Amino acid sequence: MALSAEVKDFARRLFDTVREMSADVRGVTRQGYGPVETKVLEFLKDEGRKLGLEIETDAAGNVWMTMKGRDSTRPAFVAGSHVDSVPQGGNFDGLAGVVAALVAAKHMHDEGVVPAVDYRVLMMRCEESSFFGKAYVGSLGMLGRLKASDLALRHRTEAGTLADAIRSTGVDPERLTTGEPVVDVKKIGAFVELHIEQGPTLTSRESPRVGVVTGIRGNIRHKNVVCLGETAHSGAVNKEYRHDAVMAAAHLFAEMDAAWDEFLAAGKDLVFTVGVLKTGETAAISVIPGEVRFTIDMRSLKKETLDEFHARLEAEAKKLEAARGVRFVFDDALYTAPAVLSDDVSERLHAAAREAGIPVMPIASGAGHDSAVFANAGIPAAMIFIANQHGSHNPDEAMELDDFMTGAALLTETVLRYA
Amino acid sequence: MALSAEVKDFARRLFDTVREMSADVRGVTRQGYGPVETKVLEFLKDEGRKLGLEIETDAAGNVWMTMKGRDSTRPAFVAGSHVDSVPQGGNFDGLAGVVAALVAAKHMHDEGVVPAVDYRVLMMRCEESSFFGKAYVGSLGMLGRLKASDLALRHRTEAGTLADAIRSTGVDPERLTTGEPVVDVKKIGAFVELHIEQGPTLTSRESPRVGVVTGIRGNIRHKNVVCLGETAHSGAVNKEYRHDAVMAAAHLFAEMDAAWDEFLAAGKDLVFTVGVLKTGETAAISVIPGEVRFTIDMRSLKKETLDEFHARLEAEAKKLEAARGVRFVFDDALYTAPAVLSDDVSERLHAAAREAGIPVMPIASGAGHDSAVFANAGIPAAMIFIANQHGSHNPDEAMELDDFMTGAALLTETVLRYA
Repeated sequence: MALSAEVKDFARRLFDTVREMSADVRGVTRQGYGPVETKVLEFLKDEGRKLGLEIETDAAGNVWMTMKGRDSTRPAFVAGSHVDSVPQGGNFDGLAGVVAALVAAKHMHDEGVVPAVDYRVLMMRCEESSFFGKAYVGSLGMLGRLKASDLALRHRTEAGTLADAIRSTGVDPERLTTGEPVVDVKKIGAFVELHIEQGPTLTSRESPRVGVVTGIRGNIRHKNVVCLGETAHSGAVNKEYRHDAVMAAAHLFAEMDAAWDEFLAAGKDLVFTVGVLKTGETAAISVIPGEVRFTIDMRSLKKETLDEFHARLEAEAKKLEAARGVRFVFDDALYTAPAVLSDDVSERLHAAAREAGIPVMPIASGAGHDSAVFANAGIPAAMIFIANQHGSHNPDEAMELDDFMTGAALLTETVLRYA
Repeated sequence: MALSAEVKDFARRLFDTVREMSADVRGVTRQGYGPVETKVLEFLKDEGRKLGLEIETDAAGNVWMTMKGRDSTRPAFVAGSHVDSVPQGGNFDGLAGVVAALVAAKHMHDEGVVPAVDYRVLMMRCEESSFFGKAYVGSLGMLGRLKASDLALRHRTEAGTLADAIRSTGVDPERLTTGEPVVDVKKIGAFVELHIEQGPTLTSRESPRVGVVTGIRGNIRHKNVVCLGETAHSGAVNKEYRHDAVMAAAHLFAEMDAAWDEFLAAGKDLVFTVGVLKTGETAAISVIPGEVRFTIDMRSLKKETLDEFHARLEAEAKKLEAARGVRFVFDDALYTAPAVLSDDVSERLHAAAREAGIPVMPIASGAGHDSAVFANAGIPAAMIFIANQHGSHNPDEAMELDDFMTGAALLTETVLRYA
């Protein structure tokens, strides 16, 4: 099945209109629980109304638009994503998943199809952490899992807290911290989120340009590791007497890079990044560095892989300490568990792709998503990735409409087959 | 020959008195062409006078104290060093060479020895660059080799220029930029500078605790090398798509560390330092770094070794560029030629050591010295190093008086044998 030209025009119009509504000096800006996000939601609700969808807003401010199925007593098939964006971000991160969900509804509406169970378009608020420093606010709030400390977070540039922003949309923020979901999660039979890929895997190939996500990588992070050596004159101290912190750190990174290759060769999912690296304040060209600080970020679909690679990091550091007379001081490791997506829903995506002749590839998600919040809360969630250039969170993100339509067709085929 | 207990007391008293005269909150501070340096010179001139030395000040403000030899028509044997210090530095850097020169004079005075040629104690001003950013001001000024731009350098914390400071001691700074020496350099038959070692080689062993310097390392420096990769999401971009600037730089340093081992194994003199290393302003824990900046400092006694290692650096960078899709942008290399010390004077030091039974070892100087200025101007110069803990330019530098006396005895033996 190819979606009709009308459906494609519909998708193009939604993207273009929302882009105009949220244009900033560069890119688009749709702050979670802000007026632009609200305006976009109102526009999309109007579009849903035209398709005959019933519209509700949950107690967290997320919008649900329902097409009744043949059996409304059974759990619904839910599709959607978030409508907010980072400041001066791209138009597709989040919005693509919402438009795809509407595309499936538009197709069923145009073709007169009544789905087996209720089909619900979910438009979530405030997934991005850029304005208040807290991610997944709409989905966590829906599950009652926000904390008082989250609500107290201040806007990064303006007056007011996250609680103030939430309250300004008519939502009671206190209700979102009770630990009790504000919706009946048992009524979600499946959740599918279509999203642009935030890496280059899909866009680097002719085909497939669509991926079925295998899981959402968890991570282990160190915000501040220090390597301490001994400061000394760069000309006067021979190699055998040096305790050079930069050299020790360089060897650590090179060793871990080689270990990473080993892990990949063994079929393990892993990425490893030293994002920030700095010698001390008193560092100088003619001084052997006695201090260097750096961050560590390792991510994998498997907790065991993270633990194994982290142990390897500590072991390599120990070896270098012994060999080079330096000391590595690790701050506490921060753990985020990998999110396990639903095998059942993912298999439905694969089956629909096979049967409809849509080429797809399995792909890991390195970034977090509302789907991970749902998956960790026991909701059967799956994700579709679409090829996209230049990553996300910047005005240059670039998804081809044809690739989007292929992904939206996969979503639609899966809804049509759901029973 | 061991120097007498009186001579040792003399040396101890000079060190202690000068330390008291120049004590700062921590360590000592004797700014070149500053009042403390002048006060210390006056004190040491008084000590020279007591030994019957004739005192002159050259047109650069350096002080010469002469013991007449049997033949004053022949070029003199000159010994000395500088009296200034870095701010809150140690007491021995520079001063040890001046006190050693006075110790030799004291010995000859006490023993009634008349040297073969004039023996001259040289006390130089302003060797350290810490206050005005220019090193070797006293010795370069003596040779007429200061530049107008040097004189215009501003004090790092106070009002005034280097020219102002020089003028405040009664010296005409303009005279020091003519290209013409202010002294007759042909009258210097040999110059010997005793100095604390600024590295740990001598202090790491029982014996020898005294070194004869083989040369003063030259260097090639880059103040700002940039490695440019591609910024991307640390979770969403797999290894094969990364252009990680930190990883590329880490491999470059690890490769150069291995190459350095090769060079040492081949008997080449070399040290290599990456002193400053920093990721870009927008670096973050969850971002693959697209930029890292660093400094390079390589030093060797041989220009060919520097050129060879520098070529290796460029070759390894090229390899990494090809393998990792990054780019290394090197700023212009800054060259300082190695200083070739006098074989003749150095051999005299070795001969005196052998004959007097003083254990010495050959050792390279990694830091620059007034001796290098002299050597590069064709003056036959040599250096004696003394074991010293904790490097120099800090209040913790620690030379044992016994080690100093061994080095001063070597200087004295060499003067006594000079003919």
